[in-house]
Amino acid sequence: MPSRYADNRFMWQQTLIQLKARPRGFHLITRDIEAALPELSEYQTGLLHLLLQHTSASLSLNENADPAVRRDFERFFNRLTPWHSEYEHADEGPDDLPAHFKASLLGCQLSLPIQNGRLALGTWQGIYLGEHREQGGSRRILATLHGI
Amino acid sequence: MPSRYADNRFMWQQTLIQLKARPRGFHLITRDIEAALPELSEYQTGLLHLLLQHTSASLSLNENADPAVRRDFERFFNRLTPWHSEYEHADEGPDDLPAHFKASLLGCQLSLPIQNGRLALGTWQGIYLGEHREQGGSRRILATLHGI
Amino acid sequence: MPSRYADNRFMWQQTLIQLKARPRGFHLITRDIEAALPELSEYQTGLLHLLLQHTSASLSLNENADPAVRRDFERFFNRLTPWHSEYEHADEGPDDLPAHFKASLLGCQLSLPIQNGRLALGTWQGIYLGEHREQGGSRRILATLHGI
Repeated sequence: MPSRYADNRFMWQQTLIQLKARPRGFHLITRDIEAALPELSEYQTGLLHLLLQHTSASLSLNENADPAVRRDFERFFNRLTPWHSEYEHADEGPDDLPAHFKASLLGCQLSLPIQNGRLALGTWQGIYLGEHREQGGSRRILATLHGI
Repeated sequence: MPSRYADNRFMWQQTLIQLKARPRGFHLITRDIEAALPELSEYQTGLLHLLLQHTSASLSLNENADPAVRRDFERFFNRLTPWHSEYEHADEGPDDLPAHFKASLLGCQLSLPIQNGRLALGTWQGIYLGEHREQGGSRRILATLHGI
Repeated sequence: MPSRYADNRFMWQQTLIQLKARPRGFHLITRDIEAALPELSEYQTGLLHLLLQHTSASLSLNENADPAVRRDFERFFNRLTPWHSEYEHADEGPDDLPAHFKASLLGCQLSLPIQNGRLALGTWQGIYLGEHREQGGSRRILATLHGI
Protein backbone atom coordinates (compact mmCIF):
# COMPACT_ATOMS: atom_id res chain seq x y z
CA MET A 1 0.00 0.00 0.00
CA PRO A 2 1.29 3.45 -0.79
CA SER A 3 1.59 5.94 2.05
CA ARG A 4 -0.32 9.10 1.10
CA TYR A 5 -0.95 12.55 2.46
CA ALA A 6 -3.05 15.37 1.02
CA ASP A 7 -3.90 18.79 2.45
CA ASN A 8 -6.05 21.01 0.31
CA ARG A 9 -4.53 20.35 -3.09
CA PHE A 10 -0.96 19.43 -2.12
CA MET A 11 -0.20 15.71 -2.16
CA TRP A 12 2.72 13.40 -1.34
CA GLN A 13 2.84 9.66 -1.87
CA GLN A 14 5.39 6.85 -1.72
CA THR A 15 4.99 3.42 -3.32
CA LEU A 16 7.47 0.55 -3.50
CA ILE A 17 7.44 -1.07 -6.94
CA GLN A 18 8.76 -4.61 -7.20
CA LEU A 19 9.83 -5.41 -10.75
CA LYS A 20 9.90 -8.98 -11.99
CA ALA A 21 13.31 -10.53 -12.68
CA ARG A 22 14.63 -9.80 -16.17
CA PRO A 23 17.59 -11.12 -18.17
CA ARG A 24 20.76 -9.08 -18.54
CA GLY A 25 20.18 -6.18 -20.96
CA PHE A 26 18.11 -3.03 -21.33
CA HIS A 27 14.34 -3.22 -20.82
CA LEU A 28 11.55 -0.70 -21.39
CA ILE A 29 9.59 -0.39 -18.12
CA THR A 30 7.45 2.73 -18.68
CA ARG A 31 4.22 0.71 -18.60
CA ASP A 32 5.24 -1.21 -15.47
CA ILE A 33 5.80 2.09 -13.67
CA GLU A 34 2.53 3.63 -14.86
CA ALA A 35 0.57 0.49 -14.01
CA ALA A 36 1.97 0.48 -10.47
CA LEU A 37 0.94 4.10 -9.92
CA PRO A 38 -2.76 4.55 -10.75
CA GLU A 39 -2.72 7.69 -8.54
CA LEU A 40 -0.76 9.51 -11.27
CA SER A 41 -4.12 10.46 -12.75
CA GLU A 42 -4.94 12.57 -9.67
CA TYR A 43 -2.00 14.94 -10.18
CA GLN A 44 -2.54 17.95 -12.42
CA THR A 45 1.07 19.17 -12.00
CA GLY A 46 3.81 17.32 -10.18
CA LEU A 47 6.92 15.21 -10.19
CA LEU A 48 7.55 11.49 -9.95
CA HIS A 49 10.87 10.49 -8.43
CA LEU A 50 12.16 6.96 -8.95
CA LEU A 51 15.02 5.43 -6.97
CA LEU A 52 16.23 2.02 -8.06
CA GLN A 53 17.53 0.62 -4.77
CA HIS A 54 20.41 -1.37 -6.26
CA THR A 55 24.02 -0.84 -7.32
CA SER A 56 24.27 -3.24 -10.27
CA ALA A 57 21.33 -2.04 -12.37
CA SER A 58 20.35 1.38 -13.76
CA LEU A 59 17.49 3.70 -14.69
CA SER A 60 17.68 6.00 -17.71
CA LEU A 61 15.53 7.58 -20.41
CA ASN A 62 15.96 6.69 -24.06
CA GLU A 63 14.35 5.65 -27.33
CA ASN A 64 11.11 3.72 -26.85
CA ALA A 65 10.43 2.43 -30.37
CA ASP A 66 13.06 0.14 -31.92
CA PRO A 67 14.14 -2.80 -29.69
CA ALA A 68 17.43 -2.88 -31.64
CA VAL A 69 18.44 0.32 -29.84
CA ARG A 70 18.24 -1.50 -26.50
CA ARG A 71 20.36 -4.36 -27.85
CA ASP A 72 22.90 -1.83 -29.14
CA PHE A 73 22.94 -0.24 -25.66
CA GLU A 74 23.91 -3.61 -24.20
CA ARG A 75 26.73 -3.97 -26.74
CA PHE A 76 27.98 -0.41 -26.28
CA PHE A 77 28.03 -0.50 -22.48
CA ASN A 78 29.73 -3.90 -22.45
CA ARG A 79 32.48 -2.49 -24.68
CA LEU A 80 32.77 0.59 -22.48
CA THR A 81 33.28 -1.36 -19.25
CA PRO A 82 35.56 -4.33 -20.01
CA TRP A 83 37.12 -6.33 -17.24
CA HIS A 84 40.72 -5.32 -16.58
CA SER A 85 43.42 -7.22 -14.72
CA GLU A 86 44.22 -4.29 -12.45
CA TYR A 87 40.81 -4.34 -10.72
CA GLU A 88 40.65 -5.51 -7.09
CA HIS A 89 36.99 -6.33 -6.39
CA ALA A 90 37.01 -9.62 -8.29
CA ASP A 91 35.23 -12.19 -6.15
CA GLU A 92 31.61 -11.70 -7.28
CA GLY A 93 32.03 -12.71 -10.90
CA PRO A 94 33.14 -10.93 -14.08
CA ASP A 95 29.80 -9.16 -14.51
CA ASP A 96 29.83 -7.57 -11.04
CA LEU A 97 32.30 -4.69 -11.22
CA PRO A 98 31.24 -3.66 -14.77
CA ALA A 99 27.65 -3.66 -13.43
CA HIS A 100 28.66 -1.14 -10.74
CA PHE A 101 30.38 1.06 -13.34
CA LYS A 102 27.29 0.98 -15.58
CA ALA A 103 25.04 1.84 -12.63
CA SER A 104 27.02 5.03 -12.00
CA LEU A 105 27.46 5.96 -15.68
CA LEU A 106 23.73 5.63 -16.34
CA GLY A 107 22.43 6.51 -12.88
CA CYS A 108 19.81 4.86 -10.70
CA GLN A 109 17.39 7.70 -10.00
CA LEU A 110 15.18 9.88 -12.18
CA SER A 111 12.71 12.72 -11.66
CA LEU A 112 9.94 12.92 -14.25
CA PRO A 113 7.30 15.62 -14.70
CA ILE A 114 3.59 14.87 -14.33
CA GLN A 115 1.15 16.93 -16.38
CA ASN A 116 -2.63 16.50 -16.46
CA GLY A 117 -2.49 13.12 -14.78
CA ARG A 118 0.18 11.58 -16.97
CA LEU A 119 3.96 11.34 -17.21
CA ALA A 120 5.03 14.15 -19.53
CA LEU A 121 7.83 12.38 -21.40
CA GLY A 122 8.86 13.22 -24.95
CA THR A 123 7.18 11.29 -27.77
CA TRP A 124 10.16 8.96 -28.18
CA GLN A 125 11.20 8.70 -24.52
CA GLY A 126 10.76 5.59 -22.41
CA ILE A 127 12.16 4.48 -19.06
CA TYR A 128 14.98 1.94 -19.39
CA LEU A 129 15.84 -0.55 -16.70
CA GLY A 130 19.44 -1.60 -17.30
CA GLU A 131 19.82 -5.07 -15.80
CA HIS A 132 23.59 -5.45 -15.58
CA ARG A 133 23.90 -8.79 -13.77
CA GLU A 134 23.44 -12.27 -15.23
CA GLN A 135 21.07 -13.18 -12.38
CA GLY A 136 19.93 -9.85 -10.99
CA GLY A 137 16.59 -11.17 -9.74
CA SER A 138 13.62 -8.98 -8.86
CA ARG A 139 14.49 -5.26 -8.57
CA ARG A 140 12.93 -2.64 -6.26
CA ILE A 141 12.07 0.95 -7.18
CA LEU A 142 10.88 3.39 -4.53
CA ALA A 143 8.51 5.84 -6.24
CA THR A 144 7.81 9.24 -4.64
CA LEU A 145 5.05 11.40 -6.13
CA HIS A 146 4.25 14.94 -5.12
CA GLY A 147 2.29 17.74 -6.66
CA ILE A 148 -1.15 19.25 -6.91
CA MET B 1 1.57 30.24 -20.92
CA PRO B 2 2.80 28.43 -17.82
CA SER B 3 0.23 26.61 -15.72
CA ARG B 4 0.49 27.87 -12.13
CA TYR B 5 -0.99 27.09 -8.76
CA ALA B 6 -0.35 28.74 -5.39
CA ASP B 7 -1.97 28.18 -2.01
CA ASN B 8 -0.66 30.29 0.83
CA ARG B 9 3.04 30.18 0.13
CA PHE B 10 3.36 26.86 -1.70
CA MET B 11 3.64 27.12 -5.46
CA TRP B 12 3.84 24.80 -8.48
CA GLN B 13 4.37 25.83 -12.09
CA GLN B 14 5.08 24.18 -15.43
CA THR B 15 6.44 25.94 -18.52
CA LEU B 16 7.44 24.49 -21.87
CA ILE B 17 10.66 26.04 -23.16
CA GLN B 18 11.33 25.83 -26.87
CA LEU B 19 15.04 26.22 -27.59
CA LYS B 20 16.22 27.47 -30.96
CA ALA B 21 18.02 24.98 -33.22
CA ARG B 22 21.74 24.76 -32.54
CA PRO B 23 24.62 23.03 -34.37
CA ARG B 24 26.03 19.76 -33.12
CA GLY B 25 28.13 20.32 -30.00
CA PHE B 26 27.80 21.54 -26.41
CA HIS B 27 26.04 24.85 -25.73
CA LEU B 28 25.66 26.94 -22.59
CA ILE B 29 21.93 27.57 -22.08
CA THR B 30 21.73 28.90 -18.50
CA ARG B 31 20.57 32.32 -19.69
CA ASP B 32 17.95 30.85 -22.04
CA ILE B 33 16.46 28.93 -19.13
CA GLU B 34 16.48 31.89 -16.75
CA ALA B 35 15.01 34.21 -19.40
CA ALA B 36 12.14 31.77 -20.03
CA LEU B 37 11.28 31.60 -16.32
CA PRO B 38 10.82 35.13 -14.94
CA GLU B 39 8.76 33.59 -12.09
CA LEU B 40 12.00 32.23 -10.57
CA SER B 41 12.27 35.53 -8.72
CA GLU B 42 9.10 34.72 -6.73
CA TYR B 43 10.59 31.59 -5.11
CA GLN B 44 12.52 32.07 -1.89
CA THR B 45 13.35 28.35 -1.61
CA GLY B 46 12.54 25.72 -4.21
CA LEU B 47 13.61 23.43 -7.01
CA LEU B 48 13.58 23.73 -10.78
CA HIS B 49 13.26 20.47 -12.68
CA LEU B 50 14.17 20.36 -16.36
CA LEU B 51 13.26 17.50 -18.68
CA LEU B 52 14.69 17.62 -22.19
CA GLN B 53 12.01 15.72 -24.13
CA HIS B 54 14.39 14.09 -26.63
CA THR B 55 16.61 11.01 -26.89
CA SER B 56 19.47 12.36 -29.03
CA ALA B 57 20.46 15.43 -26.98
CA SER B 58 21.45 15.90 -23.33
CA LEU B 59 21.38 18.22 -20.32
CA SER B 60 24.28 18.45 -17.88
CA LEU B 61 26.12 20.89 -15.62
CA ASN B 62 29.69 21.92 -16.28
CA GLU B 63 32.23 24.72 -16.63
CA ASN B 64 30.68 28.00 -17.74
CA ALA B 65 33.76 30.08 -18.55
CA ASP B 66 36.08 28.78 -21.26
CA PRO B 67 34.33 27.83 -24.55
CA ALA B 68 37.28 25.48 -25.27
CA VAL B 69 35.93 23.15 -22.56
CA ARG B 70 32.73 22.71 -24.55
CA ARG B 71 34.69 21.97 -27.73
CA ASP B 72 36.76 19.42 -25.77
CA PHE B 73 33.51 17.85 -24.53
CA GLU B 74 32.45 17.35 -28.13
CA ARG B 75 35.81 15.70 -28.97
CA PHE B 76 35.80 13.51 -25.87
CA PHE B 77 32.24 12.24 -26.29
CA ASN B 78 32.77 11.56 -29.99
CA ARG B 79 35.80 9.41 -29.10
CA LEU B 80 33.84 7.64 -26.38
CA THR B 81 30.95 6.63 -28.65
CA PRO B 82 32.42 5.56 -32.01
CA TRP B 83 30.34 3.75 -34.55
CA HIS B 84 30.93 -0.02 -34.49
CA SER B 85 30.08 -2.58 -37.14
CA GLU B 86 28.23 -4.80 -34.66
CA TYR B 87 25.47 -2.25 -34.06
CA GLU B 88 21.99 -2.99 -35.45
CA HIS B 89 20.08 0.32 -35.40
CA ALA B 90 21.84 1.77 -38.44
CA ASP B 91 19.23 3.35 -40.66
CA GLU B 92 19.07 6.88 -39.21
CA GLY B 93 22.62 7.93 -40.01
CA PRO B 94 26.00 7.50 -38.30
CA ASP B 95 25.29 10.23 -35.73
CA ASP B 96 22.04 8.66 -34.49
CA LEU B 97 23.05 5.74 -32.29
CA PRO B 98 26.03 7.59 -30.75
CA ALA B 99 23.57 10.43 -29.99
CA HIS B 100 21.38 8.00 -28.02
CA PHE B 101 24.43 6.71 -26.10
CA LYS B 102 25.49 10.28 -25.25
CA ALA B 103 21.96 11.15 -24.10
CA SER B 104 22.06 8.32 -21.56
CA LEU B 105 25.67 8.89 -20.46
CA LEU B 106 25.04 12.59 -19.83
CA GLY B 107 21.35 12.43 -18.95
CA CYS B 108 18.39 14.50 -20.09
CA GLN B 109 16.93 15.77 -16.82
CA LEU B 110 18.25 17.93 -13.99
CA SER B 111 16.94 19.28 -10.69
CA LEU B 112 18.44 22.61 -9.62
CA PRO B 113 17.98 24.46 -6.33
CA ILE B 114 16.39 27.91 -6.20
CA GLN B 115 17.49 30.27 -3.44
CA ASN B 116 16.30 33.84 -2.93
CA GLY B 117 14.73 34.02 -6.37
CA ARG B 118 17.70 32.71 -8.35
CA LEU B 119 19.19 29.41 -9.45
CA ALA B 120 21.76 28.48 -6.80
CA LEU B 121 24.45 27.00 -9.04
CA GLY B 122 28.14 27.00 -8.18
CA THR B 123 30.23 29.94 -9.42
CA TRP B 124 31.61 27.97 -12.36
CA GLN B 125 28.53 25.89 -13.15
CA GLY B 126 26.38 26.38 -16.21
CA ILE B 127 23.69 24.31 -17.91
CA TYR B 128 24.94 22.49 -21.03
CA LEU B 129 22.69 21.46 -23.86
CA GLY B 130 24.47 18.65 -25.69
CA GLU B 131 23.17 18.69 -29.26
CA HIS B 132 24.23 15.29 -30.55
CA ARG B 133 22.61 15.27 -34.00
CA GLU B 134 23.82 17.04 -37.13
CA GLN B 135 20.34 18.49 -37.69
CA GLY B 136 18.65 18.23 -34.30
CA GLY B 137 16.35 21.19 -34.88
CA SER B 138 14.53 23.05 -32.12
CA ARG B 139 14.55 21.23 -28.75
CA ARG B 140 11.85 21.20 -26.04
CA ILE B 141 12.46 21.41 -22.29
CA LEU B 142 9.56 20.99 -19.86
CA ALA B 143 10.38 23.08 -16.77
CA THR B 144 8.65 22.32 -13.46
CA LEU B 145 9.14 24.77 -10.59
CA HIS B 146 7.93 24.26 -7.05
CA GLY B 147 8.73 25.83 -3.73
CA ILE B 148 7.80 28.67 -1.41
CA MET C 1 21.95 27.97 9.66
CA PRO C 2 19.44 26.29 7.40
CA SER C 3 16.59 28.42 6.09
CA ARG C 4 13.31 26.68 6.93
CA TYR C 5 9.62 27.11 6.27
CA ALA C 6 6.68 25.00 7.44
CA ASP C 7 2.93 25.50 6.99
CA ASN C 8 0.70 22.86 8.47
CA ARG C 9 2.61 19.75 7.53
CA PHE C 10 4.45 20.91 4.40
CA MET C 11 8.11 21.82 4.92
CA TRP C 12 10.99 23.23 2.87
CA GLN C 13 14.58 23.67 4.02
CA GLN C 14 17.96 24.53 2.54
CA THR C 15 21.32 23.85 4.17
CA LEU C 16 24.81 24.43 2.79
CA ILE C 17 27.12 21.50 3.64
CA GLN C 18 30.84 22.17 3.57
CA LEU C 19 32.77 18.93 3.12
CA LYS C 20 36.35 18.63 4.33
CA ALA C 21 39.08 18.37 1.67
CA ARG C 22 39.69 14.81 0.49
CA PRO C 23 42.38 13.22 -1.71
CA ARG C 24 41.66 12.36 -5.33
CA GLY C 25 39.43 9.29 -5.54
CA PHE C 26 35.94 8.12 -4.59
CA HIS C 27 34.73 8.65 -1.02
CA LEU C 28 31.65 7.44 0.83
CA ILE C 29 29.91 10.52 2.31
CA THR C 30 26.47 9.18 3.34
CA ARG C 31 27.21 9.75 7.03
CA ASP C 32 28.54 13.27 6.44
CA ILE C 33 25.29 14.17 4.70
CA GLU C 34 23.07 12.62 7.36
CA ALA C 35 25.07 14.23 10.18
CA ALA C 36 24.69 17.67 8.57
CA LEU C 37 20.92 17.28 8.30
CA PRO C 38 19.46 16.34 11.71
CA GLU C 39 16.08 17.69 10.46
CA LEU C 40 15.75 14.58 8.23
CA SER C 41 14.10 12.90 11.22
CA GLU C 42 11.16 15.34 11.02
CA TYR C 43 10.12 14.24 7.54
CA GLN C 44 7.75 11.31 7.24
CA THR C 45 7.76 11.43 3.42
CA GLY C 46 9.92 13.67 1.29
CA LEU C 47 12.90 14.21 -0.96
CA LEU C 48 16.44 15.39 -0.34
CA HIS C 49 18.11 17.13 -3.26
CA LEU C 50 21.89 17.54 -3.28
CA LEU C 51 23.76 19.86 -5.64
CA LEU C 52 27.54 19.67 -5.57
CA GLN C 53 28.45 23.22 -6.60
CA HIS C 54 31.60 22.29 -8.54
CA THR C 55 32.59 21.15 -12.03
CA SER C 56 35.56 18.90 -11.24
CA ALA C 57 33.99 16.54 -8.68
CA SER C 58 30.89 14.34 -8.76
CA LEU C 59 28.03 12.83 -6.75
CA SER C 60 26.72 9.33 -7.44
CA LEU C 61 25.22 6.30 -5.70
CA ASN C 62 27.04 3.00 -5.52
CA GLU C 63 28.23 0.08 -3.40
CA ASN C 64 28.79 1.02 0.25
CA ALA C 65 30.58 -2.05 1.58
CA ASP C 66 33.92 -2.94 -0.01
CA PRO C 67 36.43 -0.04 -0.24
CA ALA C 68 38.08 -1.89 -3.16
CA VAL C 69 35.07 -0.95 -5.31
CA ARG C 70 35.86 2.73 -4.80
CA ARG C 71 39.51 2.17 -5.72
CA ASP C 72 38.37 0.28 -8.86
CA PHE C 73 36.10 3.24 -9.69
CA GLU C 74 39.15 5.51 -9.63
CA ARG C 75 41.05 3.16 -11.95
CA PHE C 76 38.11 2.71 -14.33
CA PHE C 77 37.30 6.41 -14.67
CA ASN C 78 40.96 7.29 -15.16
CA ARG C 79 41.12 4.81 -18.03
CA LEU C 80 37.90 6.16 -19.50
CA THR C 81 39.07 9.79 -19.58
CA PRO C 82 42.72 9.80 -20.69
CA TRP C 83 44.40 12.99 -21.75
CA HIS C 84 44.52 13.39 -25.52
CA SER C 85 46.71 15.69 -27.59
CA GLU C 86 43.76 17.14 -29.49
CA TYR C 87 42.26 18.80 -26.40
CA GLU C 88 42.39 22.61 -26.16
CA HIS C 89 41.72 23.48 -22.51
CA ALA C 90 45.18 22.49 -21.28
CA ASP C 91 46.39 25.20 -18.95
CA GLU C 92 45.01 23.98 -15.61
CA GLY C 93 46.95 20.72 -15.37
CA PRO C 94 46.48 17.21 -16.74
CA ASP C 95 43.83 16.31 -14.13
CA ASP C 96 41.57 19.27 -14.97
CA LEU C 97 39.82 18.38 -18.24
CA PRO C 98 39.39 14.69 -17.29
CA ALA C 99 37.85 15.96 -14.02
CA HIS C 100 35.26 17.93 -16.00
CA PHE C 101 34.45 14.85 -18.13
CA LYS C 102 34.03 12.71 -15.02
CA ALA C 103 31.76 15.33 -13.42
CA SER C 104 29.39 15.14 -16.39
CA LEU C 105 29.57 11.33 -16.80
CA LEU C 106 28.77 10.77 -13.13
CA GLY C 107 26.70 13.88 -12.47
CA CYS C 108 26.80 16.41 -9.65
CA GLN C 109 23.23 16.34 -8.36
CA LEU C 110 21.02 13.68 -6.80
CA SER C 111 17.47 13.46 -5.46
CA LEU C 112 16.98 10.88 -2.71
CA PRO C 113 13.74 9.74 -1.06
CA ILE C 114 13.09 10.28 2.65
CA GLN C 115 10.87 7.76 4.44
CA ASN C 116 10.01 7.76 8.15
CA GLY C 117 12.72 10.27 8.98
CA ARG C 118 15.57 8.56 7.15
CA LEU C 119 17.11 8.39 3.69
CA ALA C 120 15.47 5.43 1.96
CA LEU C 121 18.48 4.08 0.07
CA GLY C 122 18.93 0.44 -0.90
CA THR C 123 20.80 -1.80 1.55
CA TRP C 124 24.02 -1.59 -0.47
CA GLN C 125 23.73 2.00 -1.66
CA GLY C 126 25.90 4.84 -0.41
CA ILE C 127 26.57 8.39 -1.63
CA TYR C 128 29.92 8.72 -3.42
CA LEU C 129 31.83 11.96 -3.65
CA GLY C 130 34.13 11.66 -6.65
CA GLU C 131 37.06 13.99 -5.99
CA HIS C 132 38.62 14.31 -9.43
CA ARG C 133 41.34 16.93 -8.78
CA GLU C 134 44.68 16.38 -7.09
CA GLN C 135 44.04 19.35 -4.79
CA GLY C 136 40.28 19.87 -4.91
CA GLY C 137 40.07 21.40 -1.44
CA SER C 138 36.85 21.67 0.55
CA ARG C 139 33.68 21.03 -1.50
CA ARG C 140 30.23 22.59 -1.10
CA ILE C 141 26.89 20.78 -1.35
CA LEU C 142 23.62 22.72 -1.26
CA ALA C 143 21.00 20.43 0.31
CA THR C 144 17.30 21.12 -0.28
CA LEU C 145 14.75 19.10 1.74
CA HIS C 146 11.03 19.17 1.25
CA GLY C 147 8.18 16.95 2.29
CA ILE C 148 5.70 16.33 5.05
